[in-house]
Amino acid sequence: MSMTMNGTNGAVNGAMNETMNRILRVDMQAGKAAYHEVPEDDRLLGGRVLTSRIVAWEVEPGCHPLGPANKLVIAPGLLAGTSAPSSGRISIGAKSPLTGGIKESNGGGVVAGKLARLGIKAVVVEGRPAGGKLFLLLINRQGVQLLPADDLREVGVYEAASRLRERYGKKVGVLLIGPAGERLMSAAGITNTDVDGIPSRYCGRGGLGAVMGSKGLKAVVVDDAGCEPPALQDPKAFHAAVREVMEVIRETPQTAEVYPEYGTAAMVAILEAMGGLPTHNFRTGHFEQAEAIGGERLRETILARGGQPTHACMPGCPIRCSNIYHDAGGRVLVSPLEYETIGLFGSNCEIGDLDKIAELNRLCNDYGVDTIETGGAVAITMEAGLVPFGDADGAIRLVEEIGKGSIMGMVLGQGGAVTGRVLGVTDVPAVKGQIMPSYDPRAVKGLGVTYATSPMGADHTAGNTVRARIDQRSPAGQVEVSRNAQINATIYDYLGMCLFVGPAVKTRLELLEALVNARYGAAWSTEDLRRVALETLQTELAFNRAAGFGPADDRLPEYMTRQVNPASGTVFDVPAEELDGLFGR
Amino acid sequence: MSMTMNGTNGAVNGAMNETMNRILRVDMQAGKAAYHEVPEDDRLLGGRVLTSRIVAWEVEPGCHPLGPANKLVIAPGLLAGTSAPSSGRISIGAKSPLTGGIKESNGGGVVAGKLARLGIKAVVVEGRPAGGKLFLLLINRQGVQLLPADDLREVGVYEAASRLRERYGKKVGVLLIGPAGERLMSAAGITNTDVDGIPSRYCGRGGLGAVMGSKGLKAVVVDDAGCEPPALQDPKAFHAAVREVMEVIRETPQTAEVYPEYGTAAMVAILEAMGGLPTHNFRTGHFEQAEAIGGERLRETILARGGQPTHACMPGCPIRCSNIYHDAGGRVLVSPLEYETIGLFGSNCEIGDLDKIAELNRLCNDYGVDTIETGGAVAITMEAGLVPFGDADGAIRLVEEIGKGSIMGMVLGQGGAVTGRVLGVTDVPAVKGQIMPSYDPRAVKGLGVTYATSPMGADHTAGNTVRARIDQRSPAGQVEVSRNAQINATIYDYLGMCLFVGPAVKTRLELLEALVNARYGAAWSTEDLRRVALETLQTELAFNRAAGFGPADDRLPEYMTRQVNPASGTVFDVPAEELDGLFGR
Repeated sequence: MSMTMNGTNGAVNGAMNETMNRILRVDMQAGKAAYHEVPEDDRLLGGRVLTSRIVAWEVEPGCHPLGPANKLVIAPGLLAGTSAPSSGRISIGAKSPLTGGIKESNGGGVVAGKLARLGIKAVVVEGRPAGGKLFLLLINRQGVQLLPADDLREVGVYEAASRLRERYGKKVGVLLIGPAGERLMSAAGITNTDVDGIPSRYCGRGGLGAVMGSKGLKAVVVDDAGCEPPALQDPKAFHAAVREVMEVIRETPQTAEVYPEYGTAAMVAILEAMGGLPTHNFRTGHFEQAEAIGGERLRETILARGGQPTHACMPGCPIRCSNIYHDAGGRVLVSPLEYETIGLFGSNCEIGDLDKIAELNRLCNDYGVDTIETGGAVAITMEAGLVPFGDADGAIRLVEEIGKGSIMGMVLGQGGAVTGRVLGVTDVPAVKGQIMPSYDPRAVKGLGVTYATSPMGADHTAGNTVRARIDQRSPAGQVEVSRNAQINATIYDYLGMCLFVGPAVKTRLELLEALVNARYGAAWSTEDLRRVALETLQTELAFNRAAGFGPADDRLPEYMTRQVNPASGTVFDVPAEELDGLFGR
Repeated sequence: MSMTMNGTNGAVNGAMNETMNRILRVDMQAGKAAYHEVPEDDRLLGGRVLTSRIVAWEVEPGCHPLGPANKLVIAPGLLAGTSAPSSGRISIGAKSPLTGGIKESNGGGVVAGKLARLGIKAVVVEGRPAGGKLFLLLINRQGVQLLPADDLREVGVYEAASRLRERYGKKVGVLLIGPAGERLMSAAGITNTDVDGIPSRYCGRGGLGAVMGSKGLKAVVVDDAGCEPPALQDPKAFHAAVREVMEVIRETPQTAEVYPEYGTAAMVAILEAMGGLPTHNFRTGHFEQAEAIGGERLRETILARGGQPTHACMPGCPIRCSNIYHDAGGRVLVSPLEYETIGLFGSNCEIGDLDKIAELNRLCNDYGVDTIETGGAVAITMEAGLVPFGDADGAIRLVEEIGKGSIMGMVLGQGGAVTGRVLGVTDVPAVKGQIMPSYDPRAVKGLGVTYATSPMGADHTAGNTVRARIDQRSPAGQVEVSRNAQINATIYDYLGMCLFVGPAVKTRLELLEALVNARYGAAWSTEDLRRVALETLQTELAFNRAAGFGPADDRLPEYMTRQVNPASGTVFDVPAEELDGLFGR
């Protein structure tokens, strides 16, 4: 089956609609696709604001996340395709098979910018093909094609991306699932190719790769050849705002030095000092071998082997927090090696060896599973006694089971909560079925509040408070800190801007509104951005309530309120009433 | 460790307190037990009314069901130990690891009567021992002992019960878990020995065997030697009421003929005729080989081999719906072989062979897993393609994995919802994580309403409407029918009376109040019984809400509202608003 759908609805060929005002709807059951114009009033929808709106409006909350009634929504942020720094993030939304609630999963790479250049505000994938067939969606200036992709079945993402770039040109962007997504694993993510064409940038959380797999969609190939950047309504003001953002990025130590030099791995030492580095399945926040997996060691190792300690995942990113990690033989092992992976596979599994962690990362990437969820599941398997803590080769063998699709692999591929359930491990560090990222919430209580109350489940990018100027171990004031962080995170997810711009612009949010206003000819204030973000959060929370969530779902696992983290000396003790009051319920 | 706790609180030795007014609290962490007197005002608490009250009052709704904060509550019905016919049912309650909500699981056998003779209204098991130790609880007239049971670790229930009766006397009653409960499998039940000392009567649903396992409790041995039956406040009135109940049982065809002659297997032909016999993982309600697994064939086979087509699970039960099924060589294979097992392992797995179904039943019993949940999980495994539908030996091999504790077995042992999740099967016939019993809710819509709205999840004993005089395929009036059935079921679970008395006494409920009044010196009306039942349901629903359940949890799986059952020609279409209105929410 192959079909071309040129100009099904509106002019697809010819001059690009550079205002980024089209939604591409793909019906996998009928094998049809069509462009729909977005009304003028909705031109300021984008990123998470748009994915959550479409999911909330169009997806029956009670549907099975992997059934035909769910929809996969792919939306570049509002500033995608422009020269605004670090603004090429992509939002992917759906009802999550991992949490059972609404999900927006966010990633870097080049796809968002290319979609924006094609004038596409969102791609909405609906239905599922009969007979378990597999397709790829090719989007270019000439039109849209749904092509058979059975030759890519069970092919890992590195090989699959390589073949697709061979076939469709080195400059295409590819959004892709691995075998895990095809097998409907709830830990499956969706990867995006980076500036080097490597499928390294994961929308990892919430199992959206399984939603894509359930639609029979292996890949979206985005070719923006011949397209121009999106039109700017006020180019002069836009470029002035871009210069100012660049300047504050250069003036802020976090964005000018820490992220470029050490990447996110700088967090290892910080969390170890806070007593919040997850260790031994979140039993404690202190890892003896923290130094061996920290930012300094990572940088030294990369430099000694000829890798890249600093690297941009998106074109023109000035922060360049990414890296390219080589093995001892000087060959690329994985890119990037990031803090969350180091925390979940390193300290949490007591593996004090960056090479082994990088190998685990590479395997997860290739199979297409989230490293947070999978690292958490492996630590739970260690707690169950199947593999000893610290046994890196044992951990690698476990992850290889995911690639094989064995029963053990299918269990791990469903994430930590299911792994705990199957193996009889009751202390599972998850909220709404999603494993916590690499910050023990007893030591970083604001993040604990975010884990508990975010409509996304335990997710650091939903509102990270680790840098808040507050006593991190006290329950006091954490709800307010988390609330602000959640609203700000939603603004970044809306604009498609990387959260890491945050440290630079957090006191200059007017620069963000200046970018939006100059790009779209709007007159928004910071308050408008905050209002839209809060409305989006409320929309997401309402979806979750309709999907069956009650206040008891907005809690950390009960054992964390009883069992002290010995490294911080604390339990999680932010009162339930405060959690329930966070969004005014 | 061994300890004797004589008269810890109140007189345990000597003359029995025949008013059945003590609660035995067992703290597994401290290794202590104590009797507590029940206040006079609470003398009319019993069975499900008591288990649900204790769980709702004492268990934190957000706790992990297998953590130390959950409690296992074992309570005989209010009429236990008396000569009231079929009144020896036992209620076991806890927060369920399968549904995440409150659970009461109900079974026959001899244990309830023996507890009543010991004056025990409930046994409440709390905490969990350090170091994964395993114990048994011995209760007799002399006191209470918590004894090491490591020699029974991973021993199947047939062998374990045999050893315990060898050790403590043939007349003791035993309540017991198999290896599945020890391994914290959510499909694990708790079995009770029957009149022959066989551990055949399962409190099967909701995974309460895993709760017992999480407490480190392998068995409760109940020895009522030297005890008298509970005192009757008005013996003359009681015996008169008993005579009347016996008379209506004898005059009602269902209780006088159908149940004794064919047992519950008579339902095969009825459901097949209704298009509601679950077949091929609930894809249809019609099974080609229905006759080969029906009540007539079962009776013929049993008679030809010298088994017992009619058998009482409780002393003095006049209905005797149970049976003893022999293999072709004339040896006992299993007792009883019941409709739910025949439906879930037979038609639902397309196995048209009673010998194979009996073998599957025996294995499940021995390992200690619910046959409904496990049959559902096996059919899902067949849908995933691991074993073909109809492959009885393949099904047996799968169930044997549960016994081995392999990863496949651990998955199956977690029940159908987890099995579906792991194997990527999206159409799972479950509500609140619990597999539906053997009635397709599209063909028997009142039962669909019960599955959706019962605080227990998909459970036929929570309110069976299959005999209601209503168009079973129409959505009209089903909510009212289910509501009445749920209230009546709660009354039976309260009194410890078997639901099968229902067809006889349903128009003579005053006989039940006469029994209660004569036993306890009360002056209750039918309305009082209904009021207590409704209050109990409301208590259970409130617990579930506090545990995180919302209206979306009170739904059948969405695919059953879309996919027609071809045998009945219907989808499930009782409106959501009616479901939400059932208990006046």
